Amino acid sequence: MAKNTEKRTDVNELGEFGLIEHLTQDFPIKNKSTYKGVGDDAAVIDNGKMMTVVSTDMLVEGIHFDLMYSPLKHLGYKSVIVNLSDIYAMNATPKQITMSLAFSNRFSVEALEEFYSGVRLACERYNVDLVGGDTTSSPKGIIISVTAIGEVEKDRLTYRNTAKVGDLMCVTGDFGAAYLGLQILEREKQIYVSSPGVQPDLEDQSYLVGRQLKPEAQKDMIEGFRKADLIPTSMIDVSDGLASEIFHICKQSGVGAFVEESGVPIHPDAEMMALKFKIDPIACALSGGEDYELLFTIDPKDVEKVKYIAGIYIMGEIVEASQGIKLHTKGGNIHPIKAQGWKHF
Amino acid sequence: MAKNTEKRTDVNELGEFGLIEHLTQDFPIKNKSTYKGVGDDAAVIDNGKMMTVVSTDMLVEGIHFDLMYSPLKHLGYKSVIVNLSDIYAMNATPKQITMSLAFSNRFSVEALEEFYSGVRLACERYNVDLVGGDTTSSPKGIIISVTAIGEVEKDRLTYRNTAKVGDLMCVTGDFGAAYLGLQILEREKQIYVSSPGVQPDLEDQSYLVGRQLKPEAQKDMIEGFRKADLIPTSMIDVSDGLASEIFHICKQSGVGAFVEESGVPIHPDAEMMALKFKIDPIACALSGGEDYELLFTIDPKDVEKVKYIAGIYIMGEIVEASQGIKLHTKGGNIHPIKAQGWKHF
Repeated sequence: MAKNTEKRTDVNELGEFGLIEHLTQDFPIKNKSTYKGVGDDAAVIDNGKMMTVVSTDMLVEGIHFDLMYSPLKHLGYKSVIVNLSDIYAMNATPKQITMSLAFSNRFSVEALEEFYSGVRLACERYNVDLVGGDTTSSPKGIIISVTAIGEVEKDRLTYRNTAKVGDLMCVTGDFGAAYLGLQILEREKQIYVSSPGVQPDLEDQSYLVGRQLKPEAQKDMIEGFRKADLIPTSMIDVSDGLASEIFHICKQSGVGAFVEESGVPIHPDAEMMALKFKIDPIACALSGGEDYELLFTIDPKDVEKVKYIAGIYIMGEIVEASQGIKLHTKGGNIHPIKAQGWKHF
Repeated sequence: MAKNTEKRTDVNELGEFGLIEHLTQDFPIKNKSTYKGVGDDAAVIDNGKMMTVVSTDMLVEGIHFDLMYSPLKHLGYKSVIVNLSDIYAMNATPKQITMSLAFSNRFSVEALEEFYSGVRLACERYNVDLVGGDTTSSPKGIIISVTAIGEVEKDRLTYRNTAKVGDLMCVTGDFGAAYLGLQILEREKQIYVSSPGVQPDLEDQSYLVGRQLKPEAQKDMIEGFRKADLIPTSMIDVSDGLASEIFHICKQSGVGAFVEESGVPIHPDAEMMALKFKIDPIACALSGGEDYELLFTIDPKDVEKVKYIAGIYIMGEIVEASQGIKLHTKGGNIHPIKAQGWKHF
C-alpha cells in the first residue's frame, strides 16, 4: 500500500537542530501578525498592543522521563515548567497553557489525577491558566505535549540573536545539579532493579534530585528585570546544557564569547557529587542540561542594574566571532567550549 | 521507587469528555486575558482589539492513523486540517500553527520530508504560518501534536453553548464518507496482509478514501458567513460524529433538537458503499466522524442569508430541552438520537 521512500538518511546525520532547520526551511511567512517564526525559544504574534509569545514542547516516556523514579505529580509540574521557561526566555509573562496527553491503558483515572495535580500546582504558582488540550490513548507509554502562551510589550521582547560585542554574559542560577540528580536516580534504579528490597535513601541528595524532578522557571527574574528597568540584549533558557545555549546565542548573534570558569555557578552539592562520580564539575555545568535557568547578555552600562537583582551571576563577555567561544579555566588555561547539549536522537 | 496508586478507576468509566471535564474541573481562571478556557473547540484570549483563538490536538500512530494506508504527506496535511477545523468552528481565521513530532528511528529524513510537504501544502492552501514546534524521538511509532492559533473580532466569536430554541440547525457538507473511506482502507489492508501480491484498486472509491485521508477544513464557509453578514448563534466542527456534536451543542446550550433524516446530506458514493457494507447510511452519517464539516445554528431571521452561501444545508431545528434530541426518519418515525462518537479509549 504506502510505498517505502527509496533514499534513507538517518536523522542523526542532521541532529535535532539541523533537522528542525531542514524541515522548516521552505515555510515562508504569509501573515502580517506573524512577528517571529521558527528559531527562538518561542514564536511571536503581533496583536497590536501586546505581543503574544507561543512555545511548545513534547515529552515522551522512555526518552525524556522514566516513571520508575518520576512521580506523576512531579512530571505534571515539570512538563508545565519547561514550557514556561521558554516564555520567560523571551522576557515575556506566561498567561495560558494547553496540555495534551496520550497514555496507555495502564494509567488509571487516579494516576491521571496525580499528574494533573502537578499541572495545577504549577499553574497556581506561576499564575497561568489551563485553557485547553486533548486526552487520547496511546499504544504504549505516556506522551505529553504542552503549549504555553505569554505576552510582552514589543520593546521588552528579548531574542537569541541580538547579543553585541562587549555585552556581559549573565546567568540566573547554578548549573549541573539536574544532570547529577538524574545520575543519582539512574544509579538507584539499577540498585532497585537488581535488589528490589533495598529502599533508596535520597534525603541527602534532595537538592540535586529536586533540580531534576521538580525544576522551577525564572518568574522572579523576569519580574526583577522589569523592576530594575533592565532589558537584556539577548536571552535563552538553559534546557539542553549551558554550552549548547552559549553556542545558540553566539551563532545566531554572529559573535563569540569568553567565559570565566570561576564565574560559572555550581552548587556545593553538585561539586561534591560530580567528584564522587569522577566527572569534572565544570563539564557537568556546561553539558548537563535541564537547569531551566536563563542565560542572557546585558549592555555594560546596565551592570549596576543587575547588582540589585538577587541571584544573578556575571560569568563572561561577548567578543568578536573570530575569537571563538572559549573558557578561561581556574588554572589559567584557555580552552574552546564544545557544544554538547542533550541529544534525544 | 514510585509507588502505585491504590485505587484504580479505568478511564473508560468516564469516557473522553467526562475525563477531560473531571481532570480540569479544579483549574480556576486567574488571568483577565483568558476569555474562554476548556470546553469549546478552542480557547479564547482577549488581546484588546482582536481575540486570539487557540486549539490543540494530538494524533497517535495505531490509534488515530495507520501508516499501512496513510501516506505521510496526507498525514501531515490532515494533522494541520483537523486543527484548523477547530479554529473555523469558533468563526475565526487561523493564522499560525506549531507542529510537534515524536518519531521512532524507523523514520528517515526523507520520510519526515514527505510529512512536512503535506504540512506545507496545508499551510499554503489555508494561508497559515508554521511558527514553531518540537521534534524528538519516540520509543515506538509517530506522535503528532499541533496547536493552531487564529483571530476573530469579539462580536463574531461563535461558541457551542449559545444555541436558542427556534434556531435552525445547519451543516456545511455531507456526512459518513470519511468513515466509509476508513472501512474500505481497513478491508484492503486485510486483503493485503493475507495476499501481499494483490494491489488494491481504490480509484472507484476516490471520494470516500479522499474524505478519510485528506479532509479539508471549512475556510470558504467562514469567509462566506462574513460576506453574507451572518453570525451563527452556535457552532462546532464535526470530528467525533454528527450525533455526538449535536449532543455537545444541545447539552452545553441547554436545548433539544429535531433533525430531519431527509435533511442530513449523504454523498451518493457513501449511500452506495454503506449499503454494500450492510450499514444504514444514516447511521454512518450520524456516528461516522472525521467529516470536518461545521454544524451550526442560525436565527430564523437569517435564513435568507444562508441561501446565498453555496453548500449549506438546513437539517433541523432547536427545540426545548424537554423535547429531547430526535430524528424524524424518512419513513415518518421519530427516534431519539444516540451520541455515538469516536471513542479513542
